Amino acid sequence: MKEHGHHHHPESMLSVEQAFARILAFFNVLEVEERPLLEAVGQVLADDAVSPFDIPPLANSALDGYAVQASSVRDASPASPVVLKVVGSVSAGELPRDKVGPGTAVRIMTGAPVPPGADAIVGFEDTDETDRKRNGKVRMDEVAVRVAVETGNAVRPAGQDVAKGERVLEAGVPLRAAEVGVLASMGFARVNVFRRPIVSILATGDELVQPGESCPPGSIYNINSFSIASAVQRAGGVPKLLGIARDNLESLQQKIGEGLDADMLITTAGVSKGDYDIVKDVLAQRGKIELWSVRMRPAKPLAFGVLRGPQGRQVPHLGLPGNPVSALVAFEQFGGPAIRKMLGLKLLQYPTIEAVLEDPIHNADGRRVYARVVVTKRDGAYHARLTGHQSSNLLTSMARANGLAICPEDLPVKKAGEIVKVQMLDWPAEVF
Amino acid sequence: MKEHGHHHHPESMLSVEQAFARILAFFNVLEVEERPLLEAVGQVLADDAVSPFDIPPLANSALDGYAVQASSVRDASPASPVVLKVVGSVSAGELPRDKVGPGTAVRIMTGAPVPPGADAIVGFEDTDETDRKRNGKVRMDEVAVRVAVETGNAVRPAGQDVAKGERVLEAGVPLRAAEVGVLASMGFARVNVFRRPIVSILATGDELVQPGESCPPGSIYNINSFSIASAVQRAGGVPKLLGIARDNLESLQQKIGEGLDADMLITTAGVSKGDYDIVKDVLAQRGKIELWSVRMRPAKPLAFGVLRGPQGRQVPHLGLPGNPVSALVAFEQFGGPAIRKMLGLKLLQYPTIEAVLEDPIHNADGRRVYARVVVTKRDGAYHARLTGHQSSNLLTSMARANGLAICPEDLPVKKAGEIVKVQMLDWPAEVF
Repeated sequence: MKEHGHHHHPESMLSVEQAFARILAFFNVLEVEERPLLEAVGQVLADDAVSPFDIPPLANSALDGYAVQASSVRDASPASPVVLKVVGSVSAGELPRDKVGPGTAVRIMTGAPVPPGADAIVGFEDTDETDRKRNGKVRMDEVAVRVAVETGNAVRPAGQDVAKGERVLEAGVPLRAAEVGVLASMGFARVNVFRRPIVSILATGDELVQPGESCPPGSIYNINSFSIASAVQRAGGVPKLLGIARDNLESLQQKIGEGLDADMLITTAGVSKGDYDIVKDVLAQRGKIELWSVRMRPAKPLAFGVLRGPQGRQVPHLGLPGNPVSALVAFEQFGGPAIRKMLGLKLLQYPTIEAVLEDPIHNADGRRVYARVVVTKRDGAYHARLTGHQSSNLLTSMARANGLAICPEDLPVKKAGEIVKVQMLDWPAEVF
Repeated sequence: MKEHGHHHHPESMLSVEQAFARILAFFNVLEVEERPLLEAVGQVLADDAVSPFDIPPLANSALDGYAVQASSVRDASPASPVVLKVVGSVSAGELPRDKVGPGTAVRIMTGAPVPPGADAIVGFEDTDETDRKRNGKVRMDEVAVRVAVETGNAVRPAGQDVAKGERVLEAGVPLRAAEVGVLASMGFARVNVFRRPIVSILATGDELVQPGESCPPGSIYNINSFSIASAVQRAGGVPKLLGIARDNLESLQQKIGEGLDADMLITTAGVSKGDYDIVKDVLAQRGKIELWSVRMRPAKPLAFGVLRGPQGRQVPHLGLPGNPVSALVAFEQFGGPAIRKMLGLKLLQYPTIEAVLEDPIHNADGRRVYARVVVTKRDGAYHARLTGHQSSNLLTSMARANGLAICPEDLPVKKAGEIVKVQMLDWPAEVF
């Protein structure tokens, strides 16, 4: 097929927004799966969580103290304490065995159910509790109360936290520690969440060798499989590493075949204009592939297609540039958001902040520039400093960065001192 | 031992900073372990990463084009192209088979090594490459060059990215996608990182039942094991769930014993002043335990100790309050930072931002208040809104929050409209 050249691959020049919209349109939230609570952290709740009971289930004490009738201690004061008869005690986890009536009290611990008849709690500090202990007084069948309390004092009503049938968490909420705690409080040991996407990752190229192997002259290590797999994990996907496909029909067909049992196939290299056609041809045999020029730097060349997976399933394919910085920047713009959409998250892109730019960003050819920067905070303002040379083959510049400063496509330069928008790669989108 | 009361447990009133300093002093970075690259994401590099070779290893082409001697095309222009003899071709991953001399060229692809003799690259767009293709001209043994180029044009020198022996990543760096890519580029398939801490988590209380089980009247579900385990994971630790210990000697001794094969033991409930002494007593049998009152709300009662683990190992013990909001807030202040320190991270606490407070925070008793808020960004400023009632038994208020707004201990109220510091629970500390 090689002699056909590029003519069977449609190509077009797209803005970042156009590329984003076209790619994201192919992704949908994945199926619901039931998972043990602790294995669902970071996934998104698929159903509203409705409380099966009141929380707390019974009115209970907010203090360590005595359950009383407020009317019994109406006249109590430090000068003339009211002495009540202690008819029992109740701890958290117990059910009250004793009733409270006029002139009587039940000793009660925080969280314990309020005994029938009682309508208020008096804390130990407002009784002679500690004095009796200190004085070695062992008579436990009475207590002197030194204050009057209102009806309901230190009583947590049943259902105060959550009423039975109340929607406590909405479908679409990502599960963090607090949400997991709320689900546990309702007795849910398992939870329905949207499944995590499986993302196949294939590096292509005769020159690549795997880290850990020896690297003969003319070869280079496969970087992209590892950086993209890490980024897939961080975005919430499950990477499936296919290794390296060689630039021949058999190797490519085999590896791409293995990769279609997934929710997305990411390839690196082999799909820009200047490349040999072999990768493009094998992809085209499996479905549709479009080669795009996206108005961005780095990562102008991008491929996107839909391939036929097993059982007629459509598998979106994202073809990233071979250059490691370009591949990672393009992944963060398009691949990460696709994974977040499949996970059921609502915010797909990294949050941006505004920072004072400390070095100029030059824009020679009308593309949107994503410059690697370190953002720091000084005197209440964010400052963005370039992480050295912005050549797209310097992955070390990406290692030092915590954000990508954006020079718009219509500006020839963003000058030092100007305010620049910075995409914060380390911030969760949920923050804003 | 119950009759001893609290007298054998020293108690003191501490500021948040004092509690933080005392707790963190007991933790150190853990041992180094060697891990496969992709399993080390999120851990911290234990050794400087030094490049074993130049990257790129050979001078290579930054363009698809022709490798030439710049002097051969000195007089080339669109009007009078210079025709060179094409003596061979080289792709990325190949070693050059042919030499370039005066008047000759080698066809070269991006990333391919520059052939001996060549000192510059001319891109396809500055030759008749595409014209020849378009016209079906099959003569591939010559190329017309339309521009003069400088020596070194589009040649990436060997070592441009990284020189052999150069320190590329410093020990102490957390591994993200870019760092993993940099390590892969140097051929490292495995990497030395600091081990992740194992954190045992034990809920205590006769009233607790596990989620998924039925909950008889007077009982409540065990929330803390699940919310704290999720928070431990998020902080980078490996939770080890011990389940629930009942308030009796045998159950507590057994569970605490199981939990000492870890880098930290976290218990919830059972260690504040009002609680029965059984948990405190069993902990004291195993080592040292201090009961603190920390000047904070929620989470005033806190226990900290050091227990004897197997082989005489010292296991720090953090005793959190039983209340789920208090437990989670205290964990985030003290437990999360302890885990981060063991992981080798330098920044231990959550980053704070300044926001306009939209609801007042009241401070009745001179404690530092951590109020659950949702921070949003409007008109370039952060705004912090309370997530409803701040009662410490409303875990749902924590579920909606993305930050904790801080009212200092010496202010009776932080008013709506004032600027408040907010600890951002969802932000990685590495950001600033």
